[in-house]
Amino acid sequence: MQPNDAIDRYIDNHLDASIAELTRLCAQPSVSAQNWGLQECASLVGDMLSQREFKVDIIPTAGAPVVYAERQGASAKTLLFYNHYDVQPAEPLNLWETPPFEPSRRDGKLYGRGVNDDKGHFTSRLYALDALLAENENLPCNIKFILEGEEEISSPHLHEFMKEHYQLLKSDACIWESGGVDFHDAPQQALGMRGICYVELSVKTANQDVHSGLGGSIFPNAAWRLIWALNTLKDQDENILIPGFYDRVKAPNAQQVALLSALPDPAEEYKKRYGIQHFLKGMQGGLEFRQAAVFEPTCTICGLTSGYQGAGTKTVLPARASAKIDFRLVPDQTPEEVFDLLTAHLARQGFNDINVQLLGGGRPAVTDPDDPFVKLVIDTALDVYDQPMVVEPMIGGSGPNAIFKQYLGVPIVSAGIGHPGSQAHAPNENIRLDLYLKGTKHVAHIIKAFSES
Amino acid sequence: MQPNDAIDRYIDNHLDASIAELTRLCAQPSVSAQNWGLQECASLVGDMLSQREFKVDIIPTAGAPVVYAERQGASAKTLLFYNHYDVQPAEPLNLWETPPFEPSRRDGKLYGRGVNDDKGHFTSRLYALDALLAENENLPCNIKFILEGEEEISSPHLHEFMKEHYQLLKSDACIWESGGVDFHDAPQQALGMRGICYVELSVKTANQDVHSGLGGSIFPNAAWRLIWALNTLKDQDENILIPGFYDRVKAPNAQQVALLSALPDPAEEYKKRYGIQHFLKGMQGGLEFRQAAVFEPTCTICGLTSGYQGAGTKTVLPARASAKIDFRLVPDQTPEEVFDLLTAHLARQGFNDINVQLLGGGRPAVTDPDDPFVKLVIDTALDVYDQPMVVEPMIGGSGPNAIFKQYLGVPIVSAGIGHPGSQAHAPNENIRLDLYLKGTKHVAHIIKAFSES
Repeated sequence: MQPNDAIDRYIDNHLDASIAELTRLCAQPSVSAQNWGLQECASLVGDMLSQREFKVDIIPTAGAPVVYAERQGASAKTLLFYNHYDVQPAEPLNLWETPPFEPSRRDGKLYGRGVNDDKGHFTSRLYALDALLAENENLPCNIKFILEGEEEISSPHLHEFMKEHYQLLKSDACIWESGGVDFHDAPQQALGMRGICYVELSVKTANQDVHSGLGGSIFPNAAWRLIWALNTLKDQDENILIPGFYDRVKAPNAQQVALLSALPDPAEEYKKRYGIQHFLKGMQGGLEFRQAAVFEPTCTICGLTSGYQGAGTKTVLPARASAKIDFRLVPDQTPEEVFDLLTAHLARQGFNDINVQLLGGGRPAVTDPDDPFVKLVIDTALDVYDQPMVVEPMIGGSGPNAIFKQYLGVPIVSAGIGHPGSQAHAPNENIRLDLYLKGTKHVAHIIKAFSES
Repeated sequence: MQPNDAIDRYIDNHLDASIAELTRLCAQPSVSAQNWGLQECASLVGDMLSQREFKVDIIPTAGAPVVYAERQGASAKTLLFYNHYDVQPAEPLNLWETPPFEPSRRDGKLYGRGVNDDKGHFTSRLYALDALLAENENLPCNIKFILEGEEEISSPHLHEFMKEHYQLLKSDACIWESGGVDFHDAPQQALGMRGICYVELSVKTANQDVHSGLGGSIFPNAAWRLIWALNTLKDQDENILIPGFYDRVKAPNAQQVALLSALPDPAEEYKKRYGIQHFLKGMQGGLEFRQAAVFEPTCTICGLTSGYQGAGTKTVLPARASAKIDFRLVPDQTPEEVFDLLTAHLARQGFNDINVQLLGGGRPAVTDPDDPFVKLVIDTALDVYDQPMVVEPMIGGSGPNAIFKQYLGVPIVSAGIGHPGSQAHAPNENIRLDLYLKGTKHVAHIIKAFSES
């Protein structure tokens, strides 16, 4: 019998119970952008950990509370899990096939807001611990959890929390909130994340909307002011036009480029899956494409609002307009500097009427591919997935990993249950149950190997 | 006793009954942009005319029905009233102090969607007829009404209706749907209206919204495509950049400029009322300002929609974006030509991905200031308002007056109950009851004088 056979068998035999637990957790909305259900969800998460004999502390912040939990194990080693209990807004609601907060199991999948990002990852970690505890009443090493409630709004209070509480989180390695497989079902390892600077640009030109026949050729129009301001930020060739924006951008190093070169090409799969005709800048795929996807900074309009948006026509001159924008940052850009460059640029361009609000920010960060813990995670993946882990030196998304790096100095790896069709942040978010089992087994194997390393 | 004393006394003594009738009419929503309540409102309007012994015909069109009504009078002359029973959408609902479809009387005003535009004008005409019928059981001349249900969406089926039914509408003069006083309570005469070309620009870049961390630097973004396309339509100095757009624009003639010169300057009042800091192009007021307000064509963004528009942040790359735009047209521009110029321009600029939909259009048209009916309306206004009528050669708004001009050849004048704070098309639309009485008296006096002319 292989050393992990009992663990794997336990996991294969207890899927329904874990999915039931995940379903209960997802039925509790916890939308940080809308300040909806966060306290309730933190309590629920705390209860789930207490039931496993973790010592739980729900720690208030200036925003949503942080759930901290720890339980001693057999070895002196300590493994830290970072997860979050908040989710993205479920809108647009009409595009969901089943209600977002009533998880629905069909066709080998579970659908619902948060089943992947990130509640399913959290319950998968608990499920791995349950399997280990079924084998031995003591955990093989010390386990700590930190779950925040503001990841989806760029973790505005996590830095402050960490400054005060980092001693609690001391550990030897950290497993990040997400992970999963690529288009070929190969497990993926993400060794870095881009940073983010999320802003809202808004403008008000009058105290009310006005009949467009009255004001059209004499009154300023908030929507036009916004259009012209946005147009100064990026040109049609995707060049970000804010002076100084690219100054701190570092090209990937030779090892990172080598890792990128070894990755499969997702271009055709992206086209099919998302119905995309052409990639930006005439890219067709290949190394150039993969490098652009993660090692280039972005300026993405996430939303636009102004005036009348209903059916048909309304002849109105809007008094207000606003845009939500995220900048994804690469080493060594910082959100603070990008925000300053943006506001200075708009002022220079004559857009003093545009108000710029920083809604969230975080720095980019990477883990060393040569760290022994990275090797352990890659090795254990092979047992579970029967194919080698694909190592990404950087992924396009963002998270507060830079804060963990700065305060704890631990290697940060990914291991998880996602797949490319998980629809994270989109309608019909889902997980594949076969991958839920595999991701759970991988985490259990990691804990065992780590405890013995 | 003055010839109109009995009429004026009747009107002074029956305000409550007319306001009750207007309240009932406004409680019936009839939002053409949302195809809401139009049939019901047409029936209600028909009943109100039948009660006054009009012969009523509710005539179907490819859109909302047209209500036609006629009643014989003592003289051979025929006066035509053009009104509309549809209203603008009431959104944004949260800015209304009382519900838009539950008219509320307070502080000498009546508030509700449509109390001014245009249901209050219609009931004011009926009220004037009631006063004349109280004096004499026969009307002094033939009266015809046409009420359409699609004015607020640029009358898409009125041209076709007119082609088929213009014989019904033969008349000697026409009183248009609106009118009222300026900032100094002086009655206003509007002798022309700008045309309109209302379009929706929309773009779709993927089959779904995508996580912005995944697609930000490789996938096209619908919101950015829209921004860049819009930016090619108008520059920050308000120049409309569509080649050929200005080719048919005629400067106002000497008589029109003379009329404009005689008008009071609304600049300061506009600033105060609408909370506007600066007018476009550095204008301060004066003739230049008044001329720009009505004799220049416009390109107004009426609405923008894309991606996430809720509270806080959502890191999403939008698959769809759209903008509603109205172009106000001056002689001799036409909506057909502007639409063709716009689509050709966008194609030339490389925006073949932008779909352009024509949502409504109408040509500009003017009435000759020297027409005897214009003089009659101006003369009768002096009796009611105790100050001379202010004659505007053109107003900034639009309506289907060009169709009436083309098929009926009648002079078209304005007479009505509005005031500059009426909030037409905006939240808290209202009428002043003192002006409701004056506008009603003016129309009654016009009918008497016209019958005897």
